[in-house]
Amino acid sequence: MPLVSLPRVIVEPIVRNALAEDLGLAGDITSAAVIPGDHRSTVVMAARQPGVIAGLDAAELAFQLVDPAITMTRHVNDGAAVEAGEVIATISGPSRGLLTGERTALNFLSHLSGIATVTASIARAIAGTRASVACTRKTTPGLRALEKYAVRAGGGMNHRFALHDAILIKDNHIAIAGGTREALRRAKAAGHMVKIEIEVDTLSQLREVMEEGVDAVLLDNMGPEQLREAVGIVAGRAITEASGRITPETAAAIAASGVDLISVGWITHSAPILDIGLDFRSEA
Amino acid sequence: MPLVSLPRVIVEPIVRNALAEDLGLAGDITSAAVIPGDHRSTVVMAARQPGVIAGLDAAELAFQLVDPAITMTRHVNDGAAVEAGEVIATISGPSRGLLTGERTALNFLSHLSGIATVTASIARAIAGTRASVACTRKTTPGLRALEKYAVRAGGGMNHRFALHDAILIKDNHIAIAGGTREALRRAKAAGHMVKIEIEVDTLSQLREVMEEGVDAVLLDNMGPEQLREAVGIVAGRAITEASGRITPETAAAIAASGVDLISVGWITHSAPILDIGLDFRSEA
Amino acid sequence: MPLVSLPRVIVEPIVRNALAEDLGLAGDITSAAVIPGDHRSTVVMAARQPGVIAGLDAAELAFQLVDPAITMTRHVNDGAAVEAGEVIATISGPSRGLLTGERTALNFLSHLSGIATVTASIARAIAGTRASVACTRKTTPGLRALEKYAVRAGGGMNHRFALHDAILIKDNHIAIAGGTREALRRAKAAGHMVKIEIEVDTLSQLREVMEEGVDAVLLDNMGPEQLREAVGIVAGRAITEASGRITPETAAAIAASGVDLISVGWITHSAPILDIGLDFRSEA
Amino acid sequence: MPLVSLPRVIVEPIVRNALAEDLGLAGDITSAAVIPGDHRSTVVMAARQPGVIAGLDAAELAFQLVDPAITMTRHVNDGAAVEAGEVIATISGPSRGLLTGERTALNFLSHLSGIATVTASIARAIAGTRASVACTRKTTPGLRALEKYAVRAGGGMNHRFALHDAILIKDNHIAIAGGTREALRRAKAAGHMVKIEIEVDTLSQLREVMEEGVDAVLLDNMGPEQLREAVGIVAGRAITEASGRITPETAAAIAASGVDLISVGWITHSAPILDIGLDFRSEA
Amino acid sequence: MPLVSLPRVIVEPIVRNALAEDLGLAGDITSAAVIPGDHRSTVVMAARQPGVIAGLDAAELAFQLVDPAITMTRHVNDGAAVEAGEVIATISGPSRGLLTGERTALNFLSHLSGIATVTASIARAIAGTRASVACTRKTTPGLRALEKYAVRAGGGMNHRFALHDAILIKDNHIAIAGGTREALRRAKAAGHMVKIEIEVDTLSQLREVMEEGVDAVLLDNMGPEQLREAVGIVAGRAITEASGRITPETAAAIAASGVDLISVGWITHSAPILDIGLDFRSEA
Amino acid sequence: MPLVSLPRVIVEPIVRNALAEDLGLAGDITSAAVIPGDHRSTVVMAARQPGVIAGLDAAELAFQLVDPAITMTRHVNDGAAVEAGEVIATISGPSRGLLTGERTALNFLSHLSGIATVTASIARAIAGTRASVACTRKTTPGLRALEKYAVRAGGGMNHRFALHDAILIKDNHIAIAGGTREALRRAKAAGHMVKIEIEVDTLSQLREVMEEGVDAVLLDNMGPEQLREAVGIVAGRAITEASGRITPETAAAIAASGVDLISVGWITHSAPILDIGLDFRSEA
Repeated sequence: MPLVSLPRVIVEPIVRNALAEDLGLAGDITSAAVIPGDHRSTVVMAARQPGVIAGLDAAELAFQLVDPAITMTRHVNDGAAVEAGEVIATISGPSRGLLTGERTALNFLSHLSGIATVTASIARAIAGTRASVACTRKTTPGLRALEKYAVRAGGGMNHRFALHDAILIKDNHIAIAGGTREALRRAKAAGHMVKIEIEVDTLSQLREVMEEGVDAVLLDNMGPEQLREAVGIVAGRAITEASGRITPETAAAIAASGVDLISVGWITHSAPILDIGLDFRSEA
Repeated sequence: MPLVSLPRVIVEPIVRNALAEDLGLAGDITSAAVIPGDHRSTVVMAARQPGVIAGLDAAELAFQLVDPAITMTRHVNDGAAVEAGEVIATISGPSRGLLTGERTALNFLSHLSGIATVTASIARAIAGTRASVACTRKTTPGLRALEKYAVRAGGGMNHRFALHDAILIKDNHIAIAGGTREALRRAKAAGHMVKIEIEVDTLSQLREVMEEGVDAVLLDNMGPEQLREAVGIVAGRAITEASGRITPETAAAIAASGVDLISVGWITHSAPILDIGLDFRSEA
Repeated sequence: MPLVSLPRVIVEPIVRNALAEDLGLAGDITSAAVIPGDHRSTVVMAARQPGVIAGLDAAELAFQLVDPAITMTRHVNDGAAVEAGEVIATISGPSRGLLTGERTALNFLSHLSGIATVTASIARAIAGTRASVACTRKTTPGLRALEKYAVRAGGGMNHRFALHDAILIKDNHIAIAGGTREALRRAKAAGHMVKIEIEVDTLSQLREVMEEGVDAVLLDNMGPEQLREAVGIVAGRAITEASGRITPETAAAIAASGVDLISVGWITHSAPILDIGLDFRSEA
Repeated sequence: MPLVSLPRVIVEPIVRNALAEDLGLAGDITSAAVIPGDHRSTVVMAARQPGVIAGLDAAELAFQLVDPAITMTRHVNDGAAVEAGEVIATISGPSRGLLTGERTALNFLSHLSGIATVTASIARAIAGTRASVACTRKTTPGLRALEKYAVRAGGGMNHRFALHDAILIKDNHIAIAGGTREALRRAKAAGHMVKIEIEVDTLSQLREVMEEGVDAVLLDNMGPEQLREAVGIVAGRAITEASGRITPETAAAIAASGVDLISVGWITHSAPILDIGLDFRSEA
Repeated sequence: MPLVSLPRVIVEPIVRNALAEDLGLAGDITSAAVIPGDHRSTVVMAARQPGVIAGLDAAELAFQLVDPAITMTRHVNDGAAVEAGEVIATISGPSRGLLTGERTALNFLSHLSGIATVTASIARAIAGTRASVACTRKTTPGLRALEKYAVRAGGGMNHRFALHDAILIKDNHIAIAGGTREALRRAKAAGHMVKIEIEVDTLSQLREVMEEGVDAVLLDNMGPEQLREAVGIVAGRAITEASGRITPETAAAIAASGVDLISVGWITHSAPILDIGLDFRSEA
Repeated sequence: MPLVSLPRVIVEPIVRNALAEDLGLAGDITSAAVIPGDHRSTVVMAARQPGVIAGLDAAELAFQLVDPAITMTRHVNDGAAVEAGEVIATISGPSRGLLTGERTALNFLSHLSGIATVTASIARAIAGTRASVACTRKTTPGLRALEKYAVRAGGGMNHRFALHDAILIKDNHIAIAGGTREALRRAKAAGHMVKIEIEVDTLSQLREVMEEGVDAVLLDNMGPEQLREAVGIVAGRAITEASGRITPETAAAIAASGVDLISVGWITHSAPILDIGLDFRSEA
């Protein structure tokens, strides 16, 4: 499925907030002091390591909200794989604005590209299987819309966006409700136009929930063998989702079990940035 | 220096924003459907791996903004080193609110503790030297106040908070200004009550800036030997800051050169979370 | 399913915004001029016509954000059916604050109770069938969270909350995509943890989409006979939703067709208020 | 008096808030999945029933904040009476954006046009008398500026906008102040550049307040005969305002009494929407 | 008329905004470094010069939003005249919070008390006449609600709060409309529940507008003699307002002319602060 | 150092807030009633007294946020000294928008130019000395960014912007810490990239702090003779700042003592506005 940009009305308040952090009440006092107001430059943003790009809209907005006279030309789009050294975009305009917006633009672009990159590494590991890699709600506070987008840019799927868009019954819900059957019964009575998923830790629990019927099962911390057996029990009657400390190394074996989704918290909560730098090429 | 909490007036808007992301228009539809409104629980937040804690104020606020009836007792404070399995806090109250606030609370606590933990790992590596570890402006958009605080919780120093609170003349500023002397001259004319730091890449550049005089020098990408020589040139006349891909492994050698600060971008932009879980102990 | 309150973190910003509209820069100049500051009253909010109550949290907050010294005792809860003349809540406190908060409190309570009341009228009409009444995205701008809650209070279901929490393929999507099959194929490839619904206008279209498979079908503007046939074609393989100018009078016949959901836009976009008044009982 | 648009600085935050409700963190997932990014359409908004239009600025902004490439051509302006089937505006641009903005645009336009339409129905009923129809503070929370504007578009007057822009002494104020004379005395001492109006329920009360002098009298729940007598008592010394459950059917008789204003709460709090649809005409 | 506090819902966002300016991302780094966390103090706010107090709610909120453990006892209320050296309030709590909130609290209190003080100086000068002193819309951006309140605290009246709560036809309106008669005719047709005032520069203009009838006349830049004549022409048929560079020295003569209002822009736009200091009395 | 504009991303929210105050829910009802929608004018903003201009960006934005069709041509820039009667800018566009934005634009421009003007008066008085005039944190709540900018426009320096960008140890800090040495020791341990300043009231205190070493000393309430002695003691080892009720009359003598900075609270907290008017020149 092709990657679709987020509307500006979602992205803009997040970028304004980030700029407010960095500009404070005085703005960029270094550039104000050192850079002549009429000096213009052309700079490039280039990857310092291979990866997958995400966040160009936020980066462009960071420059343009600082100075609308800045223009950015993209050489690749979000979702593109780039090599080390590859130029991602060329940006031209007043040098002061370029230097003022640089860090905020790079903070967005390198953070989101980092997420896209690790997502893609798992997506590659499981290519050829029926499984997709999915993210969780373990996102950085304030950045969920952008991080979920970055996962899509990396070839991943978005699982639940938030507490309100799907029912996910976890172990604690089950314990308080008094068992999987009762929990499922209550969830179905809620009757929303939302899917219901339930966490199961054992195959016998799985058999129980499949008797009740459910849209998706979260198979928590099972190994490839157990997952294969679980997929057999489900037999296409629900989406199967494997979770629990999956890495690029273990993903292939997990995926080979036949599950539909491999959900990985660390692609959003612990992805290192993609190292992207901004280099001055010439006076514009 | 003892760790000082941020005032609630700084933290609260950030937590409200994070809850808005997760609650949307409908709130936690799973707990609403499955958990009885009068069910109460006691839960604990416990570290699943050793680390340093940061973010307890944000975590507590996440629970209390969901339901003011929830109370949290801290067993350790921000800045404390915890063992794997150690209980960080006990939280009691209506089970629905506990389940609704859980993810937002943990997203703050595990992200910020992750930053504190990697900061502490470098701080430990350089203990006994005169050097401190410092963070940069390479922070996650929207979370700079909290991430800088987490660095302090891990025993680090905060370098510039933003573009407005110190002058930092980097290579591009120097190039556009036409050299270090001219850049420094302009910066000093700005005359703010702020410190002036300048990036130098070579020892001859360093000698030049020390002739002009400056508050701090950013010694970029120099090895331990070159840094030692640089410290000798500076001779206590400025703060010396080493930067450039420093890891817990290389930090000790860098610090042994006698520099004052070791600044590390990845402690904020690429720290993995500290794995912290929430376990139900009993009905409250 | 029992009605669950929205967390205050959702409701409070909406109430603050409404108070800001009514207070402006000067506040309630009438009460300031005419009412002594130390005068206290006890007032009751009472229904002037029979209906179903929704919005007590917003109403209480409207009073308390004006003056925290005001207390409100509820005689019924949201979701309760009340008779004409029945007292809903008793509110006590400084008379100035009571008069200042009165209109905002009543605007919320009467608007939301109006929605709950018309929802309940349809719910009653179809009681005993398998159908539930559901609302749409045709809500008043800025009030969707509260209006969807009011529908639940009236015994209705919430359909999609927003553009992001379910896929609903309508006639224009189908036309642009080049047919129902292609539209469904693309939607499934999107692979979200969200349900997919498709609008069908004819039974032949319905047969086509059921061959493809889908979570729900929106049967638009069909009469009871055609709906019965449609339910037979679906045969339990998808949720069936009837829509199109359904009234309390026509709802029973529609519901008798065996559909799962009857979605009605006007319960949110055109419900008249429930007439609720505030009467002064005594000095407090 | 000609209708004057609200400045964008008032309308824009309300439209942004409405879009945020509908887009959430993920935006329009249906259009993203089903509609090609380069597909363009031309659509028309047309009335499905006769009425008076209000809200075109908000509707246009809803589209343009989703995608600035969308353009809208108006065939009528706010305040225009349209026939069933009449085309109100033609909108062209990327199909995805058109489908994403459609519901928010229509929610504004149909809600506000509904208010303009019922206002106009009363205005027509009383044409030829000296009376104007006026709205109250019984508006939908968050939409007062737009709803008051819609009343003007329908040919109505705006009474008080808020608690701060006129003094309106009601029965409870009078009771607490200890009578109309004391209440009026206090109000006049407030000395604002605002008009003072007082509610009277009987003709003897009216005679009392006219002795004191006041800018306007609210004649509550009086029939045509009593109102005629009241107008005679006032004798042009104050604005006369009739209120109390006035309908298009009873308005003419009320107006014939010679009152200046007929204030009607339900034109804002209970107006059904004007049914307006969006039809795809062609690929653009 | 007694002074009435503004509801907290108006004041709180303004105080939060001011604290955000002063705290930034790091808060009060001096107190964090130098003051022990458990040190408590009692401080007093005392006038350093005679004046009239306004702004105690904002000042108290500034302390309490920094640290809810701080309590403030008022020795005088807003509107009170104080002597040089007189203690206004005693504040106790953690010393860090007291030092952090001090400047924001004093900025509000000294600015608003400055406005109250100059207002009172004019009010005193005209005591015994029928005139009141009134403020204008020449207020400090963002502080109008508080500054208008401060004028009331100083014994003044509030003229228009904003562009929306009264019609004030000035010279440019008249010129564009084509004369006072046409301007007044249009204004009356607007028919709002608002008063209409018109600016006149000459007595012949005044006679013209009084023939048309109007609620208030703004007598611009007239001397005492001309004003006396103007008051005679108006003869009680409208409110008379004198304006134009009136000072405490000239106010008495102006007021003796019999005008109702003396409006003075500089009491809000150019009032010097009232010097108020915060003194540490003891450890609490 | 040349004056550098603040980025729009800082200024715009402040101007939007100010317009919201003045427009409320109804906007400019006078211009709506009296001025035809198609009438256009050209107006000039002219100084009514000599002074220094600051705030043109905010003024222009005030007009353009009301109506984007308004254009402004500047005849001088911020920082320029103007004569009485000198035209500052010419503004053209729809007359309604010009009249609506006029007061907000002038409120910004006259307030900020007032600050620039008094700053310049001190700057002139001390020209030829080594001293600069500096502002403090005694600013109007909500306007600090703009007021600090206005000080720069007037030729002044900005001292601390906020509590977070420098350490300033005052008398109360010293008292609680137990002396200047201990306070300085703690401040240095904080180790931020911020300068440390300490307040001293006597020369013996000054000698003590100079032994410890510090970046700047605040010489509070010292006369010219004592200041000269203090400058001699410091001997270039720290920035010297004189403070305490300095006026244009006393500034020269203070500056002649050799101090680096003269900080003056009243240039921000008590500056009268610069009288600037808006005159209609012609129909545009």
